[in-house]
Amino acid sequence: MKNITVALDAEGGDRAPSIVIQGAALSSERKPNARFIFFGDENNIKRELDQHGSAALRARSETVHCLDKISMDEKPIQALRRGKQSSMWKMLSAVSDERAHAALSAGNTGALLAMSVFCLRTATTAARPALAALWPTLTTETVVLDVGANMEADYRHLTDFAVMGAEYARILYQTPRPKVGLLNVGTEAAKGNDLVRNADARIRAIQDAAKFEYLGFVEGDDICKGVADVIVTDGFSGNIALKTAEGTAKLIGSYLRGALTSSVSGKIGAFIAKNALTAFKNRIDPRRVNGGVFLGLNGLVVKSHGGTDGSGFSSALDLTIDLAAGGVTEAVRENLARLPNLESPPSSGEPEIKSNSAKNDSIASAYEEKSL
Amino acid sequence: MKNITVALDAEGGDRAPSIVIQGAALSSERKPNARFIFFGDENNIKRELDQHGSAALRARSETVHCLDKISMDEKPIQALRRGKQSSMWKMLSAVSDERAHAALSAGNTGALLAMSVFCLRTATTAARPALAALWPTLTTETVVLDVGANMEADYRHLTDFAVMGAEYARILYQTPRPKVGLLNVGTEAAKGNDLVRNADARIRAIQDAAKFEYLGFVEGDDICKGVADVIVTDGFSGNIALKTAEGTAKLIGSYLRGALTSSVSGKIGAFIAKNALTAFKNRIDPRRVNGGVFLGLNGLVVKSHGGTDGSGFSSALDLTIDLAAGGVTEAVRENLARLPNLESPPSSGEPEIKSNSAKNDSIASAYEEKSL
Repeated sequence: MKNITVALDAEGGDRAPSIVIQGAALSSERKPNARFIFFGDENNIKRELDQHGSAALRARSETVHCLDKISMDEKPIQALRRGKQSSMWKMLSAVSDERAHAALSAGNTGALLAMSVFCLRTATTAARPALAALWPTLTTETVVLDVGANMEADYRHLTDFAVMGAEYARILYQTPRPKVGLLNVGTEAAKGNDLVRNADARIRAIQDAAKFEYLGFVEGDDICKGVADVIVTDGFSGNIALKTAEGTAKLIGSYLRGALTSSVSGKIGAFIAKNALTAFKNRIDPRRVNGGVFLGLNGLVVKSHGGTDGSGFSSALDLTIDLAAGGVTEAVRENLARLPNLESPPSSGEPEIKSNSAKNDSIASAYEEKSL
Repeated sequence: MKNITVALDAEGGDRAPSIVIQGAALSSERKPNARFIFFGDENNIKRELDQHGSAALRARSETVHCLDKISMDEKPIQALRRGKQSSMWKMLSAVSDERAHAALSAGNTGALLAMSVFCLRTATTAARPALAALWPTLTTETVVLDVGANMEADYRHLTDFAVMGAEYARILYQTPRPKVGLLNVGTEAAKGNDLVRNADARIRAIQDAAKFEYLGFVEGDDICKGVADVIVTDGFSGNIALKTAEGTAKLIGSYLRGALTSSVSGKIGAFIAKNALTAFKNRIDPRRVNGGVFLGLNGLVVKSHGGTDGSGFSSALDLTIDLAAGGVTEAVRENLARLPNLESPPSSGEPEIKSNSAKNDSIASAYEEKSL
């Protein structure tokens, strides 16, 4: 099995570096092929390693001392301007220098996104990576992307997201031909707006070249049903869907608590069913599925939840190692290169996409105005 | 109190005309100022009235015999072409002829939307009405619009939706200055896309003239928190948010059932807490809040859920009567006329909106291509 080296931001997250070292300790037992580079204050890292790390972990780890860190509330543009000595930037540089296969941080999401784009550049038509979330369903999980990076996506971006999501799903679910759906307001061909109708035509045309099965349009309530391995959407709609689902889960949890505590029989029943209700609570705990994956960069970057614990961080680390070992970045690049060069679908005056270099050069100014 | 006449589609819904007459019977007791015109097969309506209607209901009702009806799966464009003798069209004509103050149907949503636009025309910048849903929250409910009619909204449409939603909330919650939020991916001014940033500037500028309090951007998880009386969004994002929330509620219900039936203690606890769990189930039942309101037409049109029962239909009818009695259509029109004529916010090449007559004349061709 291929050795995988993960660069870890030991200064990212509410309880760094403790959760980072604890997470690595847990993952190192499950993933014998993994090596770790910790970026952060070397004294703190050493102390945590002495406390939580096995001899095996220490043997497979190294530490790069960093003088600076990005705080959780720092603006992305500010982080980009002054953060070149930070643990986050150094971690990403290790991926661009090919000293590591992937990077994982529980730090500031906007700064991580901005720095990732600068450090690794995108390998697709979009100026930003897509954020891919794992969404709990009736069966297992579905990969949903983009959940928040690309606010002004066009149909070419959505097509690239389909390719990227399919590679993610292929590795995660070990399925040769993942099922991909495109999020819309209905399933008939005439539904929705120009963006999704144009993307629908293009994704349908490339499904065989990119080795996935295209299901066509799916609706918001199909996400949780698990009808698709991958659901593609733009970052605006995807972010609203994700947060609406989180809000709905909290609302229903609150209704349930209210119902079970408003009568004596409710309280007694809840006490007896305590284990079942705890299992239910754990199942809807958002920390259970941890790890937002940035896809479409020249390198793999994963964001862990900032408030997670060591166990949650290790879930994200396991995912990072699996996706790197499966070669998600390379597979995306190869599949994108293999796609047929189709005529553009009939479009309603969408602007021509800039060349990749012009696109990447304009990122700095884009971040001035529209920080994530 | 002003007398309100509601035109009712007695052929719309899975169990029409029975639910329509039953619903009217229930509402007539609660709303002594309401009168009803039933559109449909007069023999069937008479039979249901004899069975369910009180003498008081019969005294306040009339029936218009219609030779045709629109089926639930008929395409909107087909309904428009051949449906001029249908109960749905005749019902809407009663509003445009000012024989009724409002129309209510549990029939085909797409056909109702298309026919409403043809029969009543829009009174706003948008070519279609906005669909306003009542969304359950931690406190009461929030008006969310548009949840599915306007797929290509511009900032002027979203501004009109804010005015329309505020009038709805003012009547429903009896609050002099409703709180209005704009759905986005974050709350800072730079977040999101051009559409929401332009709408944000415009809605902020008109809040005093339109007599609401603008809260700025809200996120997906704010909908359920009840932070705003009204949440404005385009029909694409709103529809995805609504269906995602429905899917999440079903998923969590399924997780809970699974947890409570997978162990003996879970089953016993659930049995003891049966009343509490039933109260919980009723609280998350989507039929509890029934009635999608079409706002922005020259007349009020309400859509009841097609699968509802008499009690659910009467909820939608009560809402229809309250909104008509509150004068929602007139208040929207007056407020829109009173708005300051602001310069357009800096826009990224959005097309100029067509004049209202050109806009309405192009509706037929729009429905050819993009049926809801």
